[in-house]
Amino acid sequence: MKHAKKDFPVSKVRRFLEPGPIVLVSSAWKGKTNIMTMGWHMMLSFEPSLVGCYIWDENHSFEMVRRSRDCVINVPTTILAKTVVGIGNCSGRDVDKFRKFRLTPSPAKKVKAPLIEECYANFECRLVDSSLITKYSLFILEVVKAHVATSPKFPQTLHYRGDGLFMISGPTVRRYRRGFKPQNL
Amino acid sequence: MKHAKKDFPVSKVRRFLEPGPIVLVSSAWKGKTNIMTMGWHMMLSFEPSLVGCYIWDENHSFEMVRRSRDCVINVPTTILAKTVVGIGNCSGRDVDKFRKFRLTPSPAKKVKAPLIEECYANFECRLVDSSLITKYSLFILEVVKAHVATSPKFPQTLHYRGDGLFMISGPTVRRYRRGFKPQNL
Repeated sequence: MKHAKKDFPVSKVRRFLEPGPIVLVSSAWKGKTNIMTMGWHMMLSFEPSLVGCYIWDENHSFEMVRRSRDCVINVPTTILAKTVVGIGNCSGRDVDKFRKFRLTPSPAKKVKAPLIEECYANFECRLVDSSLITKYSLFILEVVKAHVATSPKFPQTLHYRGDGLFMISGPTVRRYRRGFKPQNL
Repeated sequence: MKHAKKDFPVSKVRRFLEPGPIVLVSSAWKGKTNIMTMGWHMMLSFEPSLVGCYIWDENHSFEMVRRSRDCVINVPTTILAKTVVGIGNCSGRDVDKFRKFRLTPSPAKKVKAPLIEECYANFECRLVDSSLITKYSLFILEVVKAHVATSPKFPQTLHYRGDGLFMISGPTVRRYRRGFKPQNL
């Protein structure tokens, strides 16, 4: 399934990343592409739109993102659960993951890495600070272009607990909104 | 409501943090305590058990954690939703949050900051690297002691989407577990 998508403000990608979903990171380097499953990420700034991502140096994607200096953070929904698990349990050293998992790469607007069309959202990222990679495997990425499905408003996402267990996102509720100061919304 | 708790391996706190819940950070400095609501955090290592946390320098907790060099990451469940919102929408400059929100501080084992008894889990943290605070407001914390409620196994947590909206955690599923290589579990 592919989603119809719209451009989305990069300063608002927190709506989809802050709840903590597992994401798929796509990359391209020297004519090859790769995809990894990633659960360790955090927002670091709205403007610029910065995201910190942990990529273990044993991952094939580590050198691809480090050298190409860009990637795409793709947000999958629960219909891709088996694919997410499969991608996390094989290596781009051995297989072409787009082909193996029948995913559709499409060209990004601002980076060289491909978007994964089947994902709910795609955030094109540039590696803007590589100084923390050696010590923490921490890539500081700037989201430079965002594409988000036109519906549903709140995707059903996968949240990894370790041990092969996923939490599935539940309902989104508005009922606490009255407790917020306007400037905190 | 207070939870009966057990000691929990610090190397496994990812089970509760990686799904991306909003957390409450408690701190103590010069005879005062404070609590802040935090949504921007990520795992960085299992052993040592490292967590990266973003604390904005306008937050009253910023100086308290930076100077005391410790804090507790407390994981609230949905029954504390109103409290979580209230804590995020007032400042420790003006109010004693433990008193205002009728929360129970209890002494930690290894740090000076107090645990919040009403939370499902409490992770005692030391600030082990302050070098990224100036540039990214990023505190690198090591979890040195963990306390987790004896039940339920999977707490119902709050995940912030921005705009005053929370996603409530849904069910945890085992059905994808067979897709994992044993070393990846």
